[in-house]
Amino acid sequence: MSQTLTIEALQERVETIFRKSGLNAIQAGALSRVIVAGERDACKSHGIYRIEGALRTVKAGKVNPDAVPELVDQKASSIIKVDAKGGFANPAFELGVDALAERARSNGLAALVINDCTHFSALWPEVEAVTDRGLAALVMCPSYATVAPTGGTKPLLGTNPFAFGWPRSGGSPYVFDFATSVAARGEIELHRRAGKQLPEGWAIDADGQPTTEPEAALTGAMLPFGGHKGSAISTMIELLAGIMIGDLTSPEVLDYLGTTTLAPRHGELILAFSPEAFAAGRPGDPFARAEALFEAIAGQGARLPSQRRYAARAISREAGITLTADEIKQLDRLEDLGLGSVA
Amino acid sequence: MSQTLTIEALQERVETIFRKSGLNAIQAGALSRVIVAGERDACKSHGIYRIEGALRTVKAGKVNPDAVPELVDQKASSIIKVDAKGGFANPAFELGVDALAERARSNGLAALVINDCTHFSALWPEVEAVTDRGLAALVMCPSYATVAPTGGTKPLLGTNPFAFGWPRSGGSPYVFDFATSVAARGEIELHRRAGKQLPEGWAIDADGQPTTEPEAALTGAMLPFGGHKGSAISTMIELLAGIMIGDLTSPEVLDYLGTTTLAPRHGELILAFSPEAFAAGRPGDPFARAEALFEAIAGQGARLPSQRRYAARAISREAGITLTADEIKQLDRLEDLGLGSVA
Repeated sequence: MSQTLTIEALQERVETIFRKSGLNAIQAGALSRVIVAGERDACKSHGIYRIEGALRTVKAGKVNPDAVPELVDQKASSIIKVDAKGGFANPAFELGVDALAERARSNGLAALVINDCTHFSALWPEVEAVTDRGLAALVMCPSYATVAPTGGTKPLLGTNPFAFGWPRSGGSPYVFDFATSVAARGEIELHRRAGKQLPEGWAIDADGQPTTEPEAALTGAMLPFGGHKGSAISTMIELLAGIMIGDLTSPEVLDYLGTTTLAPRHGELILAFSPEAFAAGRPGDPFARAEALFEAIAGQGARLPSQRRYAARAISREAGITLTADEIKQLDRLEDLGLGSVA
Repeated sequence: MSQTLTIEALQERVETIFRKSGLNAIQAGALSRVIVAGERDACKSHGIYRIEGALRTVKAGKVNPDAVPELVDQKASSIIKVDAKGGFANPAFELGVDALAERARSNGLAALVINDCTHFSALWPEVEAVTDRGLAALVMCPSYATVAPTGGTKPLLGTNPFAFGWPRSGGSPYVFDFATSVAARGEIELHRRAGKQLPEGWAIDADGQPTTEPEAALTGAMLPFGGHKGSAISTMIELLAGIMIGDLTSPEVLDYLGTTTLAPRHGELILAFSPEAFAAGRPGDPFARAEALFEAIAGQGARLPSQRRYAARAISREAGITLTADEIKQLDRLEDLGLGSVA
């Protein structure tokens, strides 16, 4: 039978699963918060479905379940650095976000760098944590080498997510968060299972030739979104959020893991901007002006990103989160067997 | 007869044209430098062809030819602001770039904001000025409302250029600079003149329906590159480089000018990052690691952006810049008639 849980009750269940699998309270708390945020927003691909991947990465010894992230002293006053100590990115972000916000307010803009972390789930929860503090956010990180640069023939770049947020006083922020590949790897896998051809432009085969065969795409490479422009943005992400911050690039991540079935180990770059500091002394209130822009976009029938998530969130807050009988069974199994539940 | 000029000689010719048309030395110098950089790099669309557009904007009273940009005091230590005083963006950038570099080195990252400027020509000369100082650069600005947001029906966003650079010690920097629309407005105009249909996905007509007719596209709207992802990036540019910095958005620019035939008036946002500050204390040299990434990209036959420009630049430095007889005649006419040469 399906079951409806409050957001808090699901949070407790997921946290218990992680605790029983050997994650410390800091790791388990932060990880369960992002997973529950995914379920709450009806992003099933970033919800409880992800628990197994996290546990698999722990079991493979590729992430430290007992890590306690630390703030690292910096000479450069607009950089906040957190050493994740080989744990997940999420608790490292939680440790650094207030210092980032304080620094962005005083300096106008600031960067939070997370090093030596295992990236987990989507970037939008981090974007929202920054917009909740009244700041704009730009967040990016590498992934593993599964995407060929435009004009190339082999996987080199990651699906490198790029996310941005702008705070809105009246309600949920303007947030986008997308892969810089045309499609996510999971979408290609879904086509394979369904025996469906891929749309053109998604992938190339192992010889570097365009393909619509999912099997050929999985042994070949995905393509960046938007042709050479998306390829350039993805390369920028390798440079800024891999190389510049002294952490792994997507090809290095794949070398380290040897597989794309575990969560990737690398770093992350979060930029925060204070609209108040930037707009100081200029005419107009930036927040009010942004609302006029959003109205003009929505007014002509174009969709603002993340609206579907916010609608689902409102329902979850009101009515709780309903899980299917299978999902409940999966949670039971994960709680009973812990790391023994994953291969 | 065609004529070959040294870079310096062309610089002097173009500067003289602007001076005779009433631009002060600061404006004429900076403007001629970017125009000559375009010719030097065989970017004809950003070369001497642009002189008339600049003069037309002066004649229309939409840019102040006598402006002297000023550094504005900022409380926020990572923001450098330059008030362009209604002149062109280029001399304002030249005034602020050293302060930007100094601040990025000490703080790790910093922003240069240019306000009340008329944007002129490409962003890559500014990107290169930052990479010349050993820093990575991210530059963006609005334009005028000619692009519909994905899913929308009317022009609202600009072609909003997005440019990035990474310094390379051995040679020319890694630089990209592109419009966030699928195509530039000029490309649609070229199709119209040639009586050719547009590729699908470039534009919609005045009713918001997809069109391949150049005429219909020019009265309708262009589309963002990469679907909803490009649309989101373009919206981000309106927010950060328009609203956040207290300057005009693309629809406001079009209201102000009443036309897309004059250079747009708005602000500009330039971010500079110190790879040395970000990588401090981490393993590996970021510049050497970046070279390995570039080699991996080029090694599989993918093109690094800007290579064609750099090849042309090497030739121009060696052999000078060759202009056609028509181009020389045009320079003569512009020098003789000044503002009288434009409608």
